[in-house]
Amino acid sequence: MLSNTGGGFVEEKQSSSTEFLIKQRAFLKMYILTYLEDQHWYGLQLVEELRTQFKPLAFQPQHSEVYRALYDLEDEGYIKKGKVKLEGSKRAEIAIYMIADKEKAKAYKKLVKADIDRCDGLLRKALADNYS
Amino acid sequence: MLSNTGGGFVEEKQSSSTEFLIKQRAFLKMYILTYLEDQHWYGLQLVEELRTQFKPLAFQPQHSEVYRALYDLEDEGYIKKGKVKLEGSKRAEIAIYMIADKEKAKAYKKLVKADIDRCDGLLRKALADNYS
Repeated sequence: MLSNTGGGFVEEKQSSSTEFLIKQRAFLKMYILTYLEDQHWYGLQLVEELRTQFKPLAFQPQHSEVYRALYDLEDEGYIKKGKVKLEGSKRAEIAIYMIADKEKAKAYKKLVKADIDRCDGLLRKALADNYS
Repeated sequence: MLSNTGGGFVEEKQSSSTEFLIKQRAFLKMYILTYLEDQHWYGLQLVEELRTQFKPLAFQPQHSEVYRALYDLEDEGYIKKGKVKLEGSKRAEIAIYMIADKEKAKAYKKLVKADIDRCDGLLRKALADNYS
């Protein structure tokens, strides 16, 4: 469903003809872009926030999966990395992430929304077809 | 999410701690059980019906995926296979599928419904958190 956007969606492109529900990667990328809209975050903060948010819904994204989403977004030019000095340390720095291209981020989120709406339709159809 | 039922959900069990959305396999198994509630079907009929049903939602399950769902259901004792003579032929037979255990099928569908409801909650949360 993210196949009509050109570069960056290779993964989704390959399976678009038989796509079932939205991929976890795209879902996490959408959330990360939303978080970065207002402030910069560092990676571990994002992991912890996402795990906290989804815990009541029995979804616990793996650290590695969140970082892969983060690296994808950076490689694809949506976000960029900065460095800040670690408090109380002379030299230690940590990486923080921020939006690199607001319009591009907005366009990606729009595509993800279209896919979420499609998934919502699929789940609603399943409930009507199988439990009514 | 299907992990608390004992045998037959090994696949789901392994990933239950980080489960994102419902797996295609479980989704197809639910549909197949519903179809078989009222009549027997043969495999290719199920494939074609499922592909037709989901076409407007840009989901086209692969033949192989539908057959894997079918074989899972048979192996796990939810459905059984029968044979019918092919019309106009003396010896050729085709395999048809029917429910083997109504109560077990009902229990499986109940679990799938709980997971669909959870997924629905995840999508709704995503819409509220990212697009409002």
